[in-house]
Amino acid sequence: MTLPAFFEEDRIAVDASLDHLMPAENVAPPSIHQAMRYSVFAGGKRIRPILCLEAARIFDPNVAPAHYPACAIEFIHTYSLIHDDLPALDNDDLRRGKPTSHKKFGEAAAILAGDALLTLAFETIATTPVDANRRVAMLSEISAAAGTINGMVGGQVADLEAEGKRITPEMLEFIHRSKTAALIRASITSGALCVGASSDDVSRLRNFGESLGLLFQVTDDILDVEETSAALGKTAGKDAAQQKATYPAVHGLDRSHEIANELASKAVTELALYGDRASRLREIAEYLVQRRA
Amino acid sequence: MTLPAFFEEDRIAVDASLDHLMPAENVAPPSIHQAMRYSVFAGGKRIRPILCLEAARIFDPNVAPAHYPACAIEFIHTYSLIHDDLPALDNDDLRRGKPTSHKKFGEAAAILAGDALLTLAFETIATTPVDANRRVAMLSEISAAAGTINGMVGGQVADLEAEGKRITPEMLEFIHRSKTAALIRASITSGALCVGASSDDVSRLRNFGESLGLLFQVTDDILDVEETSAALGKTAGKDAAQQKATYPAVHGLDRSHEIANELASKAVTELALYGDRASRLREIAEYLVQRRA
Repeated sequence: MTLPAFFEEDRIAVDASLDHLMPAENVAPPSIHQAMRYSVFAGGKRIRPILCLEAARIFDPNVAPAHYPACAIEFIHTYSLIHDDLPALDNDDLRRGKPTSHKKFGEAAAILAGDALLTLAFETIATTPVDANRRVAMLSEISAAAGTINGMVGGQVADLEAEGKRITPEMLEFIHRSKTAALIRASITSGALCVGASSDDVSRLRNFGESLGLLFQVTDDILDVEETSAALGKTAGKDAAQQKATYPAVHGLDRSHEIANELASKAVTELALYGDRASRLREIAEYLVQRRA
Repeated sequence: MTLPAFFEEDRIAVDASLDHLMPAENVAPPSIHQAMRYSVFAGGKRIRPILCLEAARIFDPNVAPAHYPACAIEFIHTYSLIHDDLPALDNDDLRRGKPTSHKKFGEAAAILAGDALLTLAFETIATTPVDANRRVAMLSEISAAAGTINGMVGGQVADLEAEGKRITPEMLEFIHRSKTAALIRASITSGALCVGASSDDVSRLRNFGESLGLLFQVTDDILDVEETSAALGKTAGKDAAQQKATYPAVHGLDRSHEIANELASKAVTELALYGDRASRLREIAEYLVQRRA
C-alpha cells in the first residue's frame, strides 16, 4: 500500500509552512531553535496536518489559513514525541531512524524544546489569519485535545500507569481515545473550524475524526507486532517488551484487524453527505487500514 | 517589609479561582491532577495573578474575567518551576520549603504535570468570558511571553548556557528580561487587555511591566545572596554555587540595590496618568524594592 498521491503534495506544502512558522536556527538563543527544528524536520509523514488541510478543503478550496492549525498540531505532536522519548518516560534512543532529541541535544534541551513547541503551537493559533471567533474555537478544540481530561496528556498518564497491568477493553479504549484519537480529531475539526464550517459539519467531522484517530492507533499497535524495526524506523516489538496496553495484547491480532476495518467503515459513513469533496479523507481512512509502516 | 494589605485579599480570591479552574483531584486520571494541584497549591505568593487583577482594576472595578488570565499565567509560572527543578535542569529538591514535584511524584509525572499546566493555561484563555478579540489578544501576549524569542523558555535556555561563563551586563539583562520579566509583563498587559483597555493604556502598562519584571528578578538575585534558606523556603546561595548569571555577580551588591531603585522609579513613572487608580501597582513596586523573602 503506497501513500495516496495527494499526500506528497500536501506534505511538501506543510513542510514549507512549518519552516515559515518556526523561528530560524540563528535566532537567539540558537540552540533551542536548532533542537525544535531537528525534531519537527525528522521525517514525519505529516498525517495530522494533512488531515487538517483536507478537512478544510471540503468547505473551501483556499486552505491557506488552515496551514496555521495544521502546523500548530504538528508542533504539539512533535513536543509529545520528544517528551515521551525521555529517559524518565519511554526511554527511546531512536525515532524515525534518527537519534531522539535528548540523545542528540541532552535531556535539558529536549525538555525545553518540547515546552517551546507546545508554546509555539498556541502562538501559531493566535496569529492564524482568520476572524477571532474562529481562532478561539480552534484554541478550545486543540487545547482540550492536548490536555488531561480525555486528552493527550491524560492518555499518556493512563498509558504509563497501565504498563504491566491486566487491563480491560474499556480501559484500552479510554487510553487510545485520549492519547492518540483526541489530537487527530482536533486536526480535523480545527481545519473545518478554520474555514468557517457550520456546527453540524464540525460535529460530523468530529465523529469521523474520533473513529479515524482510534483507527490510527489500532493500526499503529498492529504494526508494532507485525513489522520490523527497519521498516518502522523505530524499535519494533517495544509495546510487548514494555507490556504496553495495545489492541493486539487485549484483543489478539485477528480481532484487531477486524476492529480496524469496523472503525474505517464507521469513519467514512460520516462523510456520505460530502460526496467527492471528501474523497481524500476517505482515501486516508483506507490507507490507514492497509498501511505497512 | 510586610506585604501590602490588599495582597492577602487578592491571594485568597486567586486561590479560589485556581481551584475552580483546575480539574478536581478525582477526575481521571487522578494522578496527573494531584500532581498539578500539589505544585499550584504549594504556597506561591501569587504575585503574577495579583498584578493581572490590579492592572485590570485600573480600568474596570469588575475584575472577575481577569481571574482567567491571572490563573493562566500562574499555571505557566508553575509549569516553569516544575520543569526548572528537574534533575536535568536545576536539580532542586526543595521549592517553597516542600519537596519538588519530581521528588514527590517521580520524574515522569513531573514532566507531564508541567506539560499539562502549560496546556491548561491556554484552555483557560480559550474560556475567558470576554469577547473573542480580547481572548486572542491575551493569547498573543501570553504565548509570546512564554516562548523562545525574548520569552521565558528562551531566557531559561540562555540562562543555562551562561552558567559558569563570564557574561556581560547586556547578556545578563537579555536573560532576565526573557526569563522573568516577559511573563510578569504579560500578567499586567493581559489584565488590561481582558477588561478592554485602549492600546495606549496597554502600551504604558507594557513599559511598567517590563521594568517591574526586571526589578523582580534583580531583587530575587539579591535575596539569594542576602537571605537564608529558611527565610526563602529554597536553597539560598545556589546562584553563586551554580555560577548563575545574576545582578550581584555582574554588578556587585551595592550597584544591584541601586539598579533595583532605578527600575522601581522608572516603573512607577508610567503610572502617573492613573493617579489613585494605580496606587496598588505602585505599592507592589515599592514592596519588591524592599522585600526580604
